[in-house]
Amino acid sequence: MSELSVNHLLGIKYLNQKDIELIFETADHFKEVINRPIKKVPSLRDITIANLFFENSTRTKLSFELAEKRLSADVINFSSGQSSVKKGETLIDTVNNILSMKVDMVVMRHPNPGAGIFLSKHVKASIVNAGDGAHEHPTQALLDSYSIREKLGDVAGKKVVIVGDILHSRVALSNIFALQLQGAEVMVCGPKTLLPKYISELGVKVETNLRKALNWCDVANMLRVQNERMDISYFPSTREYTQQFGVNKALLNSLNKEITIMHPGPINRGVEITSDVADSNQSIILNQVENGVAIRMAVIYLLASKIKQ
Amino acid sequence: MSELSVNHLLGIKYLNQKDIELIFETADHFKEVINRPIKKVPSLRDITIANLFFENSTRTKLSFELAEKRLSADVINFSSGQSSVKKGETLIDTVNNILSMKVDMVVMRHPNPGAGIFLSKHVKASIVNAGDGAHEHPTQALLDSYSIREKLGDVAGKKVVIVGDILHSRVALSNIFALQLQGAEVMVCGPKTLLPKYISELGVKVETNLRKALNWCDVANMLRVQNERMDISYFPSTREYTQQFGVNKALLNSLNKEITIMHPGPINRGVEITSDVADSNQSIILNQVENGVAIRMAVIYLLASKIKQ
Amino acid sequence: MSELSVNHLLGIKYLNQKDIELIFETADHFKEVINRPIKKVPSLRDITIANLFFENSTRTKLSFELAEKRLSADVINFSSGQSSVKKGETLIDTVNNILSMKVDMVVMRHPNPGAGIFLSKHVKASIVNAGDGAHEHPTQALLDSYSIREKLGDVAGKKVVIVGDILHSRVALSNIFALQLQGAEVMVCGPKTLLPKYISELGVKVETNLRKALNWCDVANMLRVQNERMDISYFPSTREYTQQFGVNKALLNSLNKEITIMHPGPINRGVEITSDVADSNQSIILNQVENGVAIRMAVIYLLASKIKQ
Repeated sequence: MSELSVNHLLGIKYLNQKDIELIFETADHFKEVINRPIKKVPSLRDITIANLFFENSTRTKLSFELAEKRLSADVINFSSGQSSVKKGETLIDTVNNILSMKVDMVVMRHPNPGAGIFLSKHVKASIVNAGDGAHEHPTQALLDSYSIREKLGDVAGKKVVIVGDILHSRVALSNIFALQLQGAEVMVCGPKTLLPKYISELGVKVETNLRKALNWCDVANMLRVQNERMDISYFPSTREYTQQFGVNKALLNSLNKEITIMHPGPINRGVEITSDVADSNQSIILNQVENGVAIRMAVIYLLASKIKQ
Repeated sequence: MSELSVNHLLGIKYLNQKDIELIFETADHFKEVINRPIKKVPSLRDITIANLFFENSTRTKLSFELAEKRLSADVINFSSGQSSVKKGETLIDTVNNILSMKVDMVVMRHPNPGAGIFLSKHVKASIVNAGDGAHEHPTQALLDSYSIREKLGDVAGKKVVIVGDILHSRVALSNIFALQLQGAEVMVCGPKTLLPKYISELGVKVETNLRKALNWCDVANMLRVQNERMDISYFPSTREYTQQFGVNKALLNSLNKEITIMHPGPINRGVEITSDVADSNQSIILNQVENGVAIRMAVIYLLASKIKQ
Repeated sequence: MSELSVNHLLGIKYLNQKDIELIFETADHFKEVINRPIKKVPSLRDITIANLFFENSTRTKLSFELAEKRLSADVINFSSGQSSVKKGETLIDTVNNILSMKVDMVVMRHPNPGAGIFLSKHVKASIVNAGDGAHEHPTQALLDSYSIREKLGDVAGKKVVIVGDILHSRVALSNIFALQLQGAEVMVCGPKTLLPKYISELGVKVETNLRKALNWCDVANMLRVQNERMDISYFPSTREYTQQFGVNKALLNSLNKEITIMHPGPINRGVEITSDVADSNQSIILNQVENGVAIRMAVIYLLASKIKQ
């Protein structure tokens, strides 16, 4: 049987094309499972998973928890609010303690880029990166590509534009890697001050005019505006942002074709995307959320089968 | 087989008498279940329930969680502290996201009156109102009536007085509806400033003298004093309140008959009720708590069976 | 079959030697269970356990939760942050409410010494003390002794020094009782201001020179420095503490024998213990954590079997 080339999911950067194919085929199976009356399989009754969230995240945490429970894994949750981290304990000590309680897999969100990579070198457990600072958010990128494949039949050859604050976005970076690996063409579009300096090295097109970007693409992935950052000097005001980089129905109707709209959520309705767009047939936003559970089941299942060997 | 006339439990206002009878008969069965050594039934193994608490509530949340687990449902918890709501997401978006993860039922506490009603019109899931502002708290009223029925054999024909801050109490409003629907006579008793202006339209007796109210009733439901509101001008001081509307054993002994004492909890001992009353044989306060789990199992079970059709 | 002499685990003070032997033999069995692929037994499918944590505690709470889940008990969690305690409810009322929901066992951490003892006299449920102020932390002492027995074959006859802030430590007190009950010799070592006045009545040796203490002992249990207390006048500064009572590899190497190092966690690396010691073969710190789950499974299992009688 096929298996992943990696023992952890630290970032899309560490996957190859076959890994992504395997994850998608496995997710196809689990998507069918979660649409049955009984949405559960007993596959991971022998696995204990710790969800370590050192940063708040409602939807990602819920999605992982549901994925784990539907695989029948034992789940323990740990958030930084409650944690010994506050008592000055190191990350490795915290995690080693949890692992000593016979935990097999760690799903971790952490504010520091590379926290999962660091951890994977020092502890004996499979690590799934659920977002590490502005670095990577691999399961989000996988569910995004999976949703494109579901909607358009394939990712290869598709033109995808990622719109918004590319500089601070782990979603953008993981998506760029995932889309390129699958043979899509990628463009980023946003205010110049929110594009990273190394953007040219990533092999993506750059566009600062939203209309041009939308006319080029098959799919537009609208990143969330981080309102909490909007008072920083190099950011546009929310109003300016919406005028230049917000998508509304009139704009979409004026394009030369119908494009697919994505958003990782949570949506700021009326800022990066208007309600008539978010709720339209062009939008696959809720499909992304649904697919998130299937993708996370697939990733956890495939990593767990490597532990059991 | 009988079924509820509704697809949601939004308020007692939307139920009919047959619904309440059906809920009580179903609760009778579950009360027996939770008194067995194994307090669980496999009935809802195919149902996923999200508990969305946008307001703190220890006992209601625990009661719902236990009810869900004893029905073998899959449960996910979501509190506003952790939530995307803070990031400016709308309630409908938050809930639609959760539902996209294949959730079948939402138990929601929300500070806004009517939040559940609004939601039920916009999302595809069965909604259980676990308290919406000062509006309704239907499962509390059901467990209250169920506890009266258990203690006195029937609700019809009984005289029930609700004592306290009627104006801000969802417990009072839901109780009034539930008791009237079952043919009980209802009186409210409290400081004039804490009675709503529309009280006369509700078909209840009004009394501001506690002794008279107690001499009239079979059952007194003592509402909790909201200490946090006691500094507001139209409230009496806690001391004044206790003198005029607090129940103590001497007062009960001076009545012409033995009445039943209820309280939705948590109790302020020595304020609205003294310890010798709370812990006496006349009090059915802990029975209410026990019955809460059976009632919630019944409500969830009956709503789930409509989903499955 | 053997059974415990008690119906609660309130403190080591209330156990006899046979109780400890029985707990250890039961833990031997569960340690084997949690090292199997499927780390679960169905033993307590009929037991509902409430974890009431009125004080933060990540690792103890996780350890209890895992122990409970691996015994297949139903688990509900309650932390003071969310609790009705804030609304002025008494501890007995809070717990009685939870018990009315058909809870069989309460695992409680509480800031007040004796909270569990008080509660055990007023409610009908088996109480497990998970730490009550500076009083006792019995499962910690049990897992500590169990880890010594595992490493050195036996506890009887061993020399154990507890190093640090003895005055404020429930870990110290429970360990003294547990070690003495099993026939170990106990010494305490720390700054004079952090030794309780009644220390001479406990039948332990007292030493303020760490090197002498280490040369005497077979095992050193290094208590955590409570940084948050270090600004209080009778405390040494962290720097002074480390110089006089911190353990480092050079110090250990200069002793006349190899001793075993323990720590209840979380570790302040470089304060009470250096990294080269914590991560050395002499350290059994992570074994303590692993054994914690087995010990808690044993305690809960044995108390539950008394409930069922």
